[in-house]
Amino acid sequence: MIKVILNGCSGKMGLLIEKLIDSEEDISLVSLHDEKNPLENAPQGDLVIDFSSKPGFMKSLEYAYKQQLHFLSGTTAIGKDGYEKLKEYSQTIAIFYSPNMSLGINFLAKILQENLNFLLKWDLGILETHHRAKKDAPSGTAMMLADIFPNPVPVNSFRMGDIPGDHKVVAARNGELIEFKHRATSREVFARGALEITRWFINCPRGFYTMRDYFKIN
Amino acid sequence: MIKVILNGCSGKMGLLIEKLIDSEEDISLVSLHDEKNPLENAPQGDLVIDFSSKPGFMKSLEYAYKQQLHFLSGTTAIGKDGYEKLKEYSQTIAIFYSPNMSLGINFLAKILQENLNFLLKWDLGILETHHRAKKDAPSGTAMMLADIFPNPVPVNSFRMGDIPGDHKVVAARNGELIEFKHRATSREVFARGALEITRWFINCPRGFYTMRDYFKIN
Amino acid sequence: MIKVILNGCSGKMGLLIEKLIDSEEDISLVSLHDEKNPLENAPQGDLVIDFSSKPGFMKSLEYAYKQQLHFLSGTTAIGKDGYEKLKEYSQTIAIFYSPNMSLGINFLAKILQENLNFLLKWDLGILETHHRAKKDAPSGTAMMLADIFPNPVPVNSFRMGDIPGDHKVVAARNGELIEFKHRATSREVFARGALEITRWFINCPRGFYTMRDYFKIN
Amino acid sequence: MIKVILNGCSGKMGLLIEKLIDSEEDISLVSLHDEKNPLENAPQGDLVIDFSSKPGFMKSLEYAYKQQLHFLSGTTAIGKDGYEKLKEYSQTIAIFYSPNMSLGINFLAKILQENLNFLLKWDLGILETHHRAKKDAPSGTAMMLADIFPNPVPVNSFRMGDIPGDHKVVAARNGELIEFKHRATSREVFARGALEITRWFINCPRGFYTMRDYFKIN
Repeated sequence: MIKVILNGCSGKMGLLIEKLIDSEEDISLVSLHDEKNPLENAPQGDLVIDFSSKPGFMKSLEYAYKQQLHFLSGTTAIGKDGYEKLKEYSQTIAIFYSPNMSLGINFLAKILQENLNFLLKWDLGILETHHRAKKDAPSGTAMMLADIFPNPVPVNSFRMGDIPGDHKVVAARNGELIEFKHRATSREVFARGALEITRWFINCPRGFYTMRDYFKIN
Repeated sequence: MIKVILNGCSGKMGLLIEKLIDSEEDISLVSLHDEKNPLENAPQGDLVIDFSSKPGFMKSLEYAYKQQLHFLSGTTAIGKDGYEKLKEYSQTIAIFYSPNMSLGINFLAKILQENLNFLLKWDLGILETHHRAKKDAPSGTAMMLADIFPNPVPVNSFRMGDIPGDHKVVAARNGELIEFKHRATSREVFARGALEITRWFINCPRGFYTMRDYFKIN
Repeated sequence: MIKVILNGCSGKMGLLIEKLIDSEEDISLVSLHDEKNPLENAPQGDLVIDFSSKPGFMKSLEYAYKQQLHFLSGTTAIGKDGYEKLKEYSQTIAIFYSPNMSLGINFLAKILQENLNFLLKWDLGILETHHRAKKDAPSGTAMMLADIFPNPVPVNSFRMGDIPGDHKVVAARNGELIEFKHRATSREVFARGALEITRWFINCPRGFYTMRDYFKIN
Repeated sequence: MIKVILNGCSGKMGLLIEKLIDSEEDISLVSLHDEKNPLENAPQGDLVIDFSSKPGFMKSLEYAYKQQLHFLSGTTAIGKDGYEKLKEYSQTIAIFYSPNMSLGINFLAKILQENLNFLLKWDLGILETHHRAKKDAPSGTAMMLADIFPNPVPVNSFRMGDIPGDHKVVAARNGELIEFKHRATSREVFARGALEITRWFINCPRGFYTMRDYFKIN
């Protein structure tokens, strides 16, 4: 049984993870945390799962580090300093970070990575569309996709309706155009992805892991 | 026989119009002009067709005004002053202006206009994609579409490959998303549209005309 | 307070309607029915809402007719005989029928209807994509869209994943292509639409109503 | 200098290849053939390029075989017997065959091939749209894409307007949807692809080659 300490339990992703874990046999929740109930003196667990804001992310990362627990986070907009903290602590504990836990979007990232030389001969662009409540733009996922390329790629954003998350990478050259599109049909896909990754990640030794590591093996 | 004085004859649109007029029986070219051969002392014609740059647009508009000829222009990025000149001279001559002569895109504009009240309850966005040689962004067409709405609509642009012109208006609200997309499959569509409009426009009295006037009747 | 007798209460749409009505102040459920608990001797209500199968549809329509209640149905694949029954009984009771209760899709239908003459000059096609559990193909909505046109329109279908419902009407002619796309981002949109329509429909006199009537006024 | 014997010279692809070769320095045409001027007693050349119909394909393949020339063909709908002839003769001469010479579409094919195990867990579908003059459906390209998968994949087709060629592979599972789209923005892309491949293919020894071989090396 994998024992989870969940940070960000009252956010949209946190609520979905609670709901999904309820029906899993090999994963259980040992404590729930958010801004009102910050992560201190939690019961013993195997890993911290964090879907929160930057301050919540920082606190829960510190906690995992002190307690020497695995740390898995999908919090976006963690900044350069947040990212460096992850790298630093990953010398001591196992850390998994991805701003997007869906297998589909990370499959696209893998394809782009593997075919970089071919795609660099094309003109590139990225479009992402999310629900109107999402404040950061471009999305962390769009930036992850753009960062695959050595040269800057234009990224456009829309905020509208209740779109869980659309991402599109467009490549054009004279005579042809290719589009790689991903649509999350519900937010559950991110929560489900997080649990699928957890089952693999819990057995990883200390180090820094991303979706690329997950895809190498799975 | 409709006698055309063409300004912008060495640009992409100008060349297409020349080619198309060649195979028309009721329209003929009487003189061709561009930066190297500006519009002065042209033989007698019925109308000036202009697909050029802002300076070329201004010169050919002045010429049509002095000669009291019909003036049809599809030049984009003519600025507020260019637009006001059109309005002013249209008190004396017949002027048709549209930054996009395709029937399809103007059909979309008509639909948006007619259903404004319904669409204002939705979150809106516009995306346009054009070939990498197009310098102005957003496209004149995207701005025409955005200007239909009383509130500002976010407009995103890509410049890539040899795309003749893609435009998309997206509308979303909780639970659903609508897209109106238009794709020009070749630049010929703009030239062909210009000639279809010319046949109707040549019989219009002085005044300012746009695609909306064309759709009212045709 | 509008009192609803719900048929198809254990189906996906039925469950959503129950959930939504729970949080409405002006609508309440008086009885729930499905195959195991068919619609007989229900407590007094104002209208029957039916989202079921063809047999369930037929039974609940008969019940509404006998009890002289308003009848609103979104059941698909009701066949020609089901449709004729609706027409027949609508001489005595008020009947609203639409295989798709989303405002967006019906807005598209309205646009196609209003611009029929223009669109008939284009080549047309319809594509619909639904979750893999949907058995009938093409969807009732796609057929409703196709039936707007006097000539046959090719309709293509995909069944995959958990897509709540994508519909696309494509129109092409030489040089250009237009797409009208609709995406239901969640099934709730159909339930929410049904309740919005109910508030208007409950005050309608006997007769046969569709989304077109709703749009005329709202 | 690569000397080309062109079969199908009066078809759309043939005309484009002639036009492109005109402006190439390392490729030249030595003779042009079509139904009225079939391939017999052509001057000496290095390879036969064939974009024709099935009978034209068969004749030009026989000719290349007799003369022991390289044979490159993009003719679609060649049937099972045509395909077997290619295989048979490739034991003696070098043969390149692809129903679609665009690099983009073949890049998609490569991606699908390389990620077959991942994609087999998803529901799959293919949509292709071509101009109304195209008679065979589904397109040879759509069938090539479908044949990558061991299980049958539903393929849908539209014939409309003057679309040079749209192909889309859709993959969905619970919670997400991926689309791989390719659009030929002009038919030139196929002719240009054929010449790019010719430069590589002319140095290949006898054997049967497809785009996969081209991508392995280039």
